[in-house]
Amino acid sequence: MSELLTIDQTATWLKERDDFLVLTHRRPDGDTLGSGGALAQCLRELGKTAYVLCNPGATPRYIHCIEPYIAPDDFEPEHIISVDTATVDLFPPNAAEYLNRISLSIDHHPSNTFYAEHTCLNAKHASCGEVVFDIIMKMTNHISPETAERLYIALSTDTGCFSFNNTTANTLSVASQLIEAGAPSKKLNKVLFRTKTRSRIKVEGMLLSGLEFSFDDKVAIASITRDMLAASGASEDDLDDIAAIPCSIEGVSIGIIIRELSSTNKCKLSVRTNPPYSARQICEHFGGGGHDAAAGCIINKPIPEIKELLKELIENIMELK
Amino acid sequence: MSELLTIDQTATWLKERDDFLVLTHRRPDGDTLGSGGALAQCLRELGKTAYVLCNPGATPRYIHCIEPYIAPDDFEPEHIISVDTATVDLFPPNAAEYLNRISLSIDHHPSNTFYAEHTCLNAKHASCGEVVFDIIMKMTNHISPETAERLYIALSTDTGCFSFNNTTANTLSVASQLIEAGAPSKKLNKVLFRTKTRSRIKVEGMLLSGLEFSFDDKVAIASITRDMLAASGASEDDLDDIAAIPCSIEGVSIGIIIRELSSTNKCKLSVRTNPPYSARQICEHFGGGGHDAAAGCIINKPIPEIKELLKELIENIMELK
Repeated sequence: MSELLTIDQTATWLKERDDFLVLTHRRPDGDTLGSGGALAQCLRELGKTAYVLCNPGATPRYIHCIEPYIAPDDFEPEHIISVDTATVDLFPPNAAEYLNRISLSIDHHPSNTFYAEHTCLNAKHASCGEVVFDIIMKMTNHISPETAERLYIALSTDTGCFSFNNTTANTLSVASQLIEAGAPSKKLNKVLFRTKTRSRIKVEGMLLSGLEFSFDDKVAIASITRDMLAASGASEDDLDDIAAIPCSIEGVSIGIIIRELSSTNKCKLSVRTNPPYSARQICEHFGGGGHDAAAGCIINKPIPEIKELLKELIENIMELK
Repeated sequence: MSELLTIDQTATWLKERDDFLVLTHRRPDGDTLGSGGALAQCLRELGKTAYVLCNPGATPRYIHCIEPYIAPDDFEPEHIISVDTATVDLFPPNAAEYLNRISLSIDHHPSNTFYAEHTCLNAKHASCGEVVFDIIMKMTNHISPETAERLYIALSTDTGCFSFNNTTANTLSVASQLIEAGAPSKKLNKVLFRTKTRSRIKVEGMLLSGLEFSFDDKVAIASITRDMLAASGASEDDLDDIAAIPCSIEGVSIGIIIRELSSTNKCKLSVRTNPPYSARQICEHFGGGGHDAAAGCIINKPIPEIKELLKELIENIMELK
């Protein structure tokens, strides 16, 4: 059974210990790498030995958050800390040897399974970075520019530059303090939120041109074929959050992206909905899952057949509303 | 000569007076209408008579900010206040009768010409809304939900939801306080920053598909023809900030949109640049003007000829760098 720690208790726990290894989650985003790097940086500023376990999935976009703290192969940590990771199966493969001895999980996911010996969780926060901020302020009452930059990346990327529904008054207040502490927010905003790759621009152009509206324009469906991916050169990074586009169109309540995977007979559906419709309901019908507003599933059929199936399903759903 | 007032002095000045009319600027944005509405609302909460002059250019996007306070035709104000307006020629035509007797200008533009009897200016703030927030807090130490909503619109729209370079620690701190005070930020962010019209989506799709890259992909040029506008049904509102797209592409330093106006022989150039290039330099060459990062001009030639002229000009500019 995991022991829940308050921010105060977590700060004391960290100050009384040394030789830390920080774990981040698979398919790492700005929140887990920013939080992990910030924690290691702050612990080092306190004179402690702290490393972050190399994350093989880290992309150029965020790897600099943890680069200065990557653990050498022969490091023998005494205490294992995880950041932003709700369950043990979310760690990358190279974390396997540590999974049965995680001392502390610092997180903001309500779905945290309390797999660690101690857990410091604030599910009201939009980002794990806000929890780490609270802990650091309690430990040192100071944020260095290096820590501020990493925490700003954590907060801003998890909230779509403070535009998503998870953004709270606390998120903005902490972000304000991080800028005061030296986070280079102008540079970061430009790179993270106001720059698109050419491949992204190409694939977006094709996607927008091919949007199909139906059901009085309440439904918008777009396809991303393997040919489109090849023509645009788009990588996984380039497709980040592209599923949000159809449902961001005025009047659209159900937005769907059908993307061909390894063959034209295997497609991934990404569904976004506004109330009263449920993305989860649509995806569960095809064996997938997710949240009410965002869900996904895999269907082993070609795009035209999937469109037919969707049409039938949505017809039924609309009749019931 | 205008008398500069501090926030304290402005608060006192307002508290000692009554019967206010607030003026907003032409082509009104979220900052001028949000600031104007918030000021009127707060003055009314203090038991005063306060109206906002109808702004004929207000679009559905922002008109609700001032709708409850629109001045009746027979209102005889004692004191005229302007918000977010740097010079007298920026007022709409229906403000003409008041222009020689503006008592107070509340603004954040460094270019304010001090046309009012008194001026309360903070050029460090990203939005006029932040200046109004300071004044209201000094007057009442309280922000009502109605005021908070309008000021949140002012701050968030002037900073691209806190992503533009003008965003400061103060902007985020004030926004945090506005959410605490009841600003419906989730609803507002969805409408203002995460919704696009179908016309906008269509015109964006066409624009992205037609992007032309040159000079080692440092230059990206897109055209918006009259046919494209007709096919998409895009209005002026739908084209808002579309000029930022070409220069937001990774590696692009000069981004240009050529848009046909009343005929195919009259085009508007919107130029955006990253250092070391200057949008102003490019546009001044064609008789236009603006800032280093963003500028515009009108050229009385068809698109293909303009592209040739641009090619020559940019070749010269690049050789000199």
